[in-house]
Amino acid sequence: MEIKHDKWFFDKINNNLMQLHAIDGVMYSGKTKFQTMEILHSPAYGKVLTLDNKIQSSQVDEFVYHEALVHPPMIAHPKPEKVFIAGGGEGATLRELLAYKTVKKAVMVDIDKAVIDISKEHLPEYHAGAFDDPRAKLHYTDARKFLENSKEKYDVIAIDLTEPVEEGPAYLLYTKEFYKIVRDKLTVNGLISVQAGCASYLELLNLKSVKKTLESMFPIVNVYQADIPSFGGAWGFCIGSMKIDPSKLSAAEVDKRIKERGLTNLKFYDGITHQAMFCQPKHIRKALNRGARLITDDSPLYLYESKGL
Amino acid sequence: MEIKHDKWFFDKINNNLMQLHAIDGVMYSGKTKFQTMEILHSPAYGKVLTLDNKIQSSQVDEFVYHEALVHPPMIAHPKPEKVFIAGGGEGATLRELLAYKTVKKAVMVDIDKAVIDISKEHLPEYHAGAFDDPRAKLHYTDARKFLENSKEKYDVIAIDLTEPVEEGPAYLLYTKEFYKIVRDKLTVNGLISVQAGCASYLELLNLKSVKKTLESMFPIVNVYQADIPSFGGAWGFCIGSMKIDPSKLSAAEVDKRIKERGLTNLKFYDGITHQAMFCQPKHIRKALNRGARLITDDSPLYLYESKGL
Amino acid sequence: MEIKHDKWFFDKINNNLMQLHAIDGVMYSGKTKFQTMEILHSPAYGKVLTLDNKIQSSQVDEFVYHEALVHPPMIAHPKPEKVFIAGGGEGATLRELLAYKTVKKAVMVDIDKAVIDISKEHLPEYHAGAFDDPRAKLHYTDARKFLENSKEKYDVIAIDLTEPVEEGPAYLLYTKEFYKIVRDKLTVNGLISVQAGCASYLELLNLKSVKKTLESMFPIVNVYQADIPSFGGAWGFCIGSMKIDPSKLSAAEVDKRIKERGLTNLKFYDGITHQAMFCQPKHIRKALNRGARLITDDSPLYLYESKGL
Amino acid sequence: MEIKHDKWFFDKINNNLMQLHAIDGVMYSGKTKFQTMEILHSPAYGKVLTLDNKIQSSQVDEFVYHEALVHPPMIAHPKPEKVFIAGGGEGATLRELLAYKTVKKAVMVDIDKAVIDISKEHLPEYHAGAFDDPRAKLHYTDARKFLENSKEKYDVIAIDLTEPVEEGPAYLLYTKEFYKIVRDKLTVNGLISVQAGCASYLELLNLKSVKKTLESMFPIVNVYQADIPSFGGAWGFCIGSMKIDPSKLSAAEVDKRIKERGLTNLKFYDGITHQAMFCQPKHIRKALNRGARLITDDSPLYLYESKGL
Repeated sequence: MEIKHDKWFFDKINNNLMQLHAIDGVMYSGKTKFQTMEILHSPAYGKVLTLDNKIQSSQVDEFVYHEALVHPPMIAHPKPEKVFIAGGGEGATLRELLAYKTVKKAVMVDIDKAVIDISKEHLPEYHAGAFDDPRAKLHYTDARKFLENSKEKYDVIAIDLTEPVEEGPAYLLYTKEFYKIVRDKLTVNGLISVQAGCASYLELLNLKSVKKTLESMFPIVNVYQADIPSFGGAWGFCIGSMKIDPSKLSAAEVDKRIKERGLTNLKFYDGITHQAMFCQPKHIRKALNRGARLITDDSPLYLYESKGL
Repeated sequence: MEIKHDKWFFDKINNNLMQLHAIDGVMYSGKTKFQTMEILHSPAYGKVLTLDNKIQSSQVDEFVYHEALVHPPMIAHPKPEKVFIAGGGEGATLRELLAYKTVKKAVMVDIDKAVIDISKEHLPEYHAGAFDDPRAKLHYTDARKFLENSKEKYDVIAIDLTEPVEEGPAYLLYTKEFYKIVRDKLTVNGLISVQAGCASYLELLNLKSVKKTLESMFPIVNVYQADIPSFGGAWGFCIGSMKIDPSKLSAAEVDKRIKERGLTNLKFYDGITHQAMFCQPKHIRKALNRGARLITDDSPLYLYESKGL
Repeated sequence: MEIKHDKWFFDKINNNLMQLHAIDGVMYSGKTKFQTMEILHSPAYGKVLTLDNKIQSSQVDEFVYHEALVHPPMIAHPKPEKVFIAGGGEGATLRELLAYKTVKKAVMVDIDKAVIDISKEHLPEYHAGAFDDPRAKLHYTDARKFLENSKEKYDVIAIDLTEPVEEGPAYLLYTKEFYKIVRDKLTVNGLISVQAGCASYLELLNLKSVKKTLESMFPIVNVYQADIPSFGGAWGFCIGSMKIDPSKLSAAEVDKRIKERGLTNLKFYDGITHQAMFCQPKHIRKALNRGARLITDDSPLYLYESKGL
Repeated sequence: MEIKHDKWFFDKINNNLMQLHAIDGVMYSGKTKFQTMEILHSPAYGKVLTLDNKIQSSQVDEFVYHEALVHPPMIAHPKPEKVFIAGGGEGATLRELLAYKTVKKAVMVDIDKAVIDISKEHLPEYHAGAFDDPRAKLHYTDARKFLENSKEKYDVIAIDLTEPVEEGPAYLLYTKEFYKIVRDKLTVNGLISVQAGCASYLELLNLKSVKKTLESMFPIVNVYQADIPSFGGAWGFCIGSMKIDPSKLSAAEVDKRIKERGLTNLKFYDGITHQAMFCQPKHIRKALNRGARLITDDSPLYLYESKGL
């Protein structure tokens, strides 16, 4: 085989799979107080943000990830006004949330100020000015503690965190105890969406465990997925709520709401996309209900240490 | 990162992406008259068949590929009796076709007898006895020439070939001229399904070109996709016909036909799967209609040489 | 670049360097009681033995390693009769020692019987019948304990062990305490030779620490090296003794003794080789005397965890 | 194994071996008129210059390469005054030559001005001001043509070129015809030194072919080698002359001349190093005389295409 590039980023997907992405530049490489951070440049993806050696988003397909995380709960909610992001470093989740004119306040709590600062400098295409929107309120602290102490309730809470790894900054924001806090801070029609990791048939442990753990707190929980090339393929999300079931929305209704709410810049999400995302093939549906773990503070889930399947 | 394995198979997905799969054994490695052939063993996938260094199928997820290739056309057809496979080496496409009791004759034409012979020996789980079914008729010759000279017509023609690479055995079975031959050999309700390569947003050239080329011969053409981990993620298929549109089948109708036709062993395919496969997100739908090539005998498409996007 | 092979063995040389060797077969892969063991096949090296994922020897260049370990002390000694091998699994060190007709008894103590058994089966070219020589005495136990309890003295003791890694079987056979035991078991003209790891300028920690540790027990210590492609390049050895200095032997004297002692099968070692091995360039000589560690039972050296330089 | 880095430079050593070097930055990446050029940063080597994807030199061990290329001919020559470099991009060969106060004129001819310009900017440690020395005369043209048309004769001619690859800028400077031109431009005591590629036992084709080709023009030809970690290990050089045999110099004589000539900054080269460099082990000596090719304009040698052994 002819290999055109000589510089490669190694992305360990699991113990049995590594993805090597060609890179042609290193725009930033350093350590923040919480994690290593890099902004690479790739001939396929343009700019690529990594945290602790895992790709967080790439310029070419970040719209898939951020639209997938934000719009299913936002469209399902009748009129989202207060929204909350746990994590969200690059500012693109904030960008998608602020696209709704109904939103009056978007609180983003990320523990790592350096990620936001460096993203502001190097990734202006991602936040697209969102950090300067007067409705955006940024806090640099632990999102769990912030939420626990918050007096406000939110219509949509988007969990946009790195994967749970040992000693990483995020693993306590994937537990039953955390979801209980979230539940208490949601309005009556409120929804939580969670980026929940790989959705490949061979690597479902995180996704099905997030699903199971959400189910211990919310009566309505759905898994949905999107294909994100820079992440290595099928990527999973979960959505939970007390009252509203986004999977019941028809394609036509989704398209109608998109139009009503003035979302003119969507590249990934529409009615058909919505339908596609909430459908899983038979073997995936079966696997999602088999062998999941309940994630708790006492028994957290760490990725990359486990056998994966 | 902790790397548990020391032996890796390099799978070049495109110029910017290589997937490294851990392997723990080499069960067979050789050259046939037409291509290199290997049967590797992997801790993730079990047995893995490669031809010309590309993974053709793996023990763990071959059911996704083979069910996806076979059942959409077979379920869409009212009563498939004669079926044809171009390629199909391992015998698993044959296995799926023969699951239909209505099928009276299944003709499989693969140019490379060695692939079938070695698969029979090393991959009995794949064919599961299909080669011994009296309805199966095997021919070891060029499928295009065979079909051209054939006097029979078929209800379903499944194109189960390696990707089109320069000097590879398959590139002339992806052209407009070949699809014309196929069209002439289909019964009035007949359908053709084609494995059409990567369906990732960044690597759609083959899929959209197969789609465009089929559209030059068939009034009804649909793209559908499934996630196949050992292939590196989203995988694309096309289906073409003169009369029947499989994308119009409801999930309930698909499930009803599965039951009626006595398909009791499906692991991947059912009504919801069918729906999910035929839905593409917005950006994919758009990209599939942009920049496709018409593949002809004079201007064939070779993968891995092109820029890909 | 054109990559001809698709299956690669990853050999971590240090934190900053991995060597990928093409492989075309896996002849054996398993776990013994003490370590993982593999016999790979490579288009460059033929058969390759690995223990705990590190290449131990390859068919094409094992003669360099085994001749380098054995002949400098054996030729330097006036008349070696009793010899001892700590480790020595594949049997090729034994083969070289038994080439001397003066040798009456060669004791080999390897903790891992499985390595010898599997080598006997798969690597007959290595031992070349040495295990069947009546002068060979094999023991499957800890070489340190064996030597400590032994009543015999030896003319040459060859330390042919895997590198010292945490929880590996060998790290306590690189310490000052072990070398004290060795010293007590050497005859008055006796010599110890030790395989001491990488001799590249950037990776000298093990070699210089073995040198320093030997120097704490022996008045005469020399470093010597040979280039072993399958090990990744320059490889280091140490030799220690109370009385004899092998580095003082002229090329002519070495050649004379080789002839006298009837060594007709040497492929690597002769007088010029001897001279070349004992000469280090200026920067290596300097680096070998800088930053070495004294290796003791209480403070052993583990490779691959350290920063290397 | 624990892999600490996520970004790796792939260096294809031959068809069966790739070296992966960790990198942490890309200081420059571009294409000149003649080749691709990169300045990478590596945790092991500091700055690394690559041309056409091959490492040319690294900050940590360039002194080994440049001292090895320059000092054997310069010390062997009784009083070098005019010297010539074919290639020499980074300026470090020039630096070593200008360390001799006897040198009155150092002509450097490199076809690729961009390499010198970018090296001046990014690699000041390499040239160390050599480009500003009034004795240095730079020309940006084909060294072969320049030399052919030159009226001057030189005491030492150093060939410091990239390896001969098809369509690369250097392959016609490795031929018999080129060495004839060189011979005609050497003074009566003159010497030519040539960087001649890999000196590993398994990859001697280039080295032995350069040796054989030089032997067709010069009565005295020696091979010598040094271990250069960033190049992947043992590296070969050839030296040719009509009259002087550098291999005959004793270590003491080399040290004496170094002192007399005021070379106070040598890190690699001294008398013992000289001796070590000119000694090859038995199997290498034998292999160097077996299977070499005579390189001619009509039948040039291209690396990386051949089978290597």
